[in-house]
Amino acid sequence: MRMYDLIVKKQRGGAMSDEEIKFVVNGFTKGEIPAEQMSAWLMAVWFRGMNSKETSSLTDAMLHSGETADLSDIPGVKVDKHSTGGVGDKTTLIAAPIVASRGGVVAKMSGRGLGHTGGTIDKLESIPGFRTEIEETKFRECVRKYGISVIGQSTELAPADKKIYALRDVTGSVDCIPLIASSIMSKKLAAGTDAILLDVTVGSGAFMKTKEEAVELAKTMVDIGERAGKRTVALITNMNAPLGKAVGNAIEVKEAVEVLKGKGPEDLRKTCIVLAANMLYLCGKGELSECRKMAEESLQDGSAYKKLMDMTKAQGGDVSVLENTGLLPKASVIEELKAEKDAYLSALNAEMVGIASMKLGAGREKLGDTLDMAAGIYLHKKPGDFVKKGETYMTLYTNDAARLISAKETLDTAVSWSDKKPVLLPEVLARVEKDKVEIFA
Amino acid sequence: MRMYDLIVKKQRGGAMSDEEIKFVVNGFTKGEIPAEQMSAWLMAVWFRGMNSKETSSLTDAMLHSGETADLSDIPGVKVDKHSTGGVGDKTTLIAAPIVASRGGVVAKMSGRGLGHTGGTIDKLESIPGFRTEIEETKFRECVRKYGISVIGQSTELAPADKKIYALRDVTGSVDCIPLIASSIMSKKLAAGTDAILLDVTVGSGAFMKTKEEAVELAKTMVDIGERAGKRTVALITNMNAPLGKAVGNAIEVKEAVEVLKGKGPEDLRKTCIVLAANMLYLCGKGELSECRKMAEESLQDGSAYKKLMDMTKAQGGDVSVLENTGLLPKASVIEELKAEKDAYLSALNAEMVGIASMKLGAGREKLGDTLDMAAGIYLHKKPGDFVKKGETYMTLYTNDAARLISAKETLDTAVSWSDKKPVLLPEVLARVEKDKVEIFA
Repeated sequence: MRMYDLIVKKQRGGAMSDEEIKFVVNGFTKGEIPAEQMSAWLMAVWFRGMNSKETSSLTDAMLHSGETADLSDIPGVKVDKHSTGGVGDKTTLIAAPIVASRGGVVAKMSGRGLGHTGGTIDKLESIPGFRTEIEETKFRECVRKYGISVIGQSTELAPADKKIYALRDVTGSVDCIPLIASSIMSKKLAAGTDAILLDVTVGSGAFMKTKEEAVELAKTMVDIGERAGKRTVALITNMNAPLGKAVGNAIEVKEAVEVLKGKGPEDLRKTCIVLAANMLYLCGKGELSECRKMAEESLQDGSAYKKLMDMTKAQGGDVSVLENTGLLPKASVIEELKAEKDAYLSALNAEMVGIASMKLGAGREKLGDTLDMAAGIYLHKKPGDFVKKGETYMTLYTNDAARLISAKETLDTAVSWSDKKPVLLPEVLARVEKDKVEIFA
Repeated sequence: MRMYDLIVKKQRGGAMSDEEIKFVVNGFTKGEIPAEQMSAWLMAVWFRGMNSKETSSLTDAMLHSGETADLSDIPGVKVDKHSTGGVGDKTTLIAAPIVASRGGVVAKMSGRGLGHTGGTIDKLESIPGFRTEIEETKFRECVRKYGISVIGQSTELAPADKKIYALRDVTGSVDCIPLIASSIMSKKLAAGTDAILLDVTVGSGAFMKTKEEAVELAKTMVDIGERAGKRTVALITNMNAPLGKAVGNAIEVKEAVEVLKGKGPEDLRKTCIVLAANMLYLCGKGELSECRKMAEESLQDGSAYKKLMDMTKAQGGDVSVLENTGLLPKASVIEELKAEKDAYLSALNAEMVGIASMKLGAGREKLGDTLDMAAGIYLHKKPGDFVKKGETYMTLYTNDAARLISAKETLDTAVSWSDKKPVLLPEVLARVEKDKVEIFA
């Protein structure tokens, strides 16, 4: 087999065999296929696409390029959740404890934030002492004992994906559904859970800009998961505006705790209940409507909150900051933005808010940047809210006053005002299960 | 400017500016743009194509990546001829002397053969003593004195093309008309002549497999030439079967001499007259019909033959082998192929004959292979000829008997027989001049 022939085959629109895809992935990972041939092949895939069999083969080849986790010795149905990225997305901190509180088992590897999107791992680390890099035995012990643990993504999982992604990133083949789907699913399958809930975000703050694209990505990933023998469901959720009112790290933990205590913003609460209900459904806890009821009760009776406390304690975190969120890292510089006239807040571009939060210190412009855990933005008003002249609609937090100017410039482009109340989309736009696509809005 | 953005621009179907194309070509040539980004961009060009302005910009950028020849101090209109490759194509050895004998000036750089296609330089070197790598002053002196010199391609011309071609060759973007056209034309423009005749071959032995593709390539190259201020004409010629009856090196020189002496195969003679007439036309020697008459006369009166003698002598070659072609290198192993039954020879796949000739030692499988100057194939019969049982239709020549088996296997796939006389295409299928396309067949 020659890489040149496989480039030409894909270029002419041919479908590649499982053996051919393994040859490409393994050859590139081992350094036997040079980057210039791989990037040409990836560009051909960008133009020609891949059928579902090819996409599954690609996922499988990347999945088996490194170690895979085996969680089979842990009792119960283990479920993972993956979001394709958003702004103000603290749903894992809420949905995972809900699921664990109702007998689901959440053994989850999460990522760090980059660019305008935040990462669960960064948020958890704003809890003093919380360790996201723990030994495997400790992780298993925590999952076994409490039904929940969230740790950082192991670099040993799917190394081929890492190498291929780095190449796609500089050669223009990132936005390609089979490549995105196989990249995500290779890591999720390598993590060893029995079931996977995918949260495919769509809108200004998400990678997918249209619902149609998001549904296609969701279908592709569900197909990969089911072909690999894992129960997989995808929700398409609205990421036109940030989720909830808090964007940052400590500030998002605070908001998550509010929701876990039965309060917090309505959009966030609703989204988390749907996510958790679907995870419980995947764990076989009942029909979706029953699972939803379980999730709601878990927030009301405080059992989900208790699970976050358990996990925090088990992973070395200081639970007192959850009991009293006033003890979380605080910003020394606080700036309020006030409305210049009476108007409806009609839109809040999530990507721009995410970039502004990054500029305040809450995110990374490039890998390796250090974070200001207290930095971020609080959105007193969300799209659809009426704001009176002089009223504060946003508060900015940072420990570096020099960062304010650029962040405020970005926020200027993020906010739209209107005389009329805007029509808004619901939180969940669609749901994809094996052979079943439901469109809600 | 960032290469990443330019990859994405072309990928999305955008047209690139002159400045952007210069950035790509110069960046890659200097090693500032890595091969993996360049191959992704080339693949995007393969899918999206290039408009004529982009193609001219690409040619110009490659042309100016190295030295360019200046022939302006040599009197007369200097004309170059380029063939996109064929089997048995010894037309330069005939057409160039014709042109020089009628006052045209041929200052030509030619290539060596690779794979199934032969090269004029190799053929000339089968004349003992003939030097194709001579000093520039010697080349100019020969052109000035005799109106003709043919030398090897200087490696300093268009180095960007060389580097880009090497990358295209391993990443699947060779067969792309704007890339082929700019590659050829950058070298032709760098060679410094006033006019260019392009011989775009089409058929089994050519890179272009259909007349439509060949016409498109011809139009693209004529457009590049005219935009660069050079008079440019392209002929689309038939390369379904080898041209003439001889395929090899010394054997082709012998056949060229026959044509120059007013004999030789009819298809070869006709093709050379059309090529030479068009070169004379480009030199401003008259209307095409007048130029054709001049070319015919030049073969009849021996003046073209005298020009080949002049050039051979000037470049150190032994003219006695032209006067007596029996003195050219001879093969020690000779094998005749005889017909198994009475039948028409209906087709003779030029590519396969070229490969068989290469296997006999007349061509290179890879760069650097040494040649057997006496090796080759003589086609006693051409498509359309009737062959009687037991009659010799081909003779194979080599100095290495071990090479015969594989060559004969290849020839088995090259020859087709039929009960009926086949319908054949003429030698010249179309002609492209600025804003004018004539289709003959």
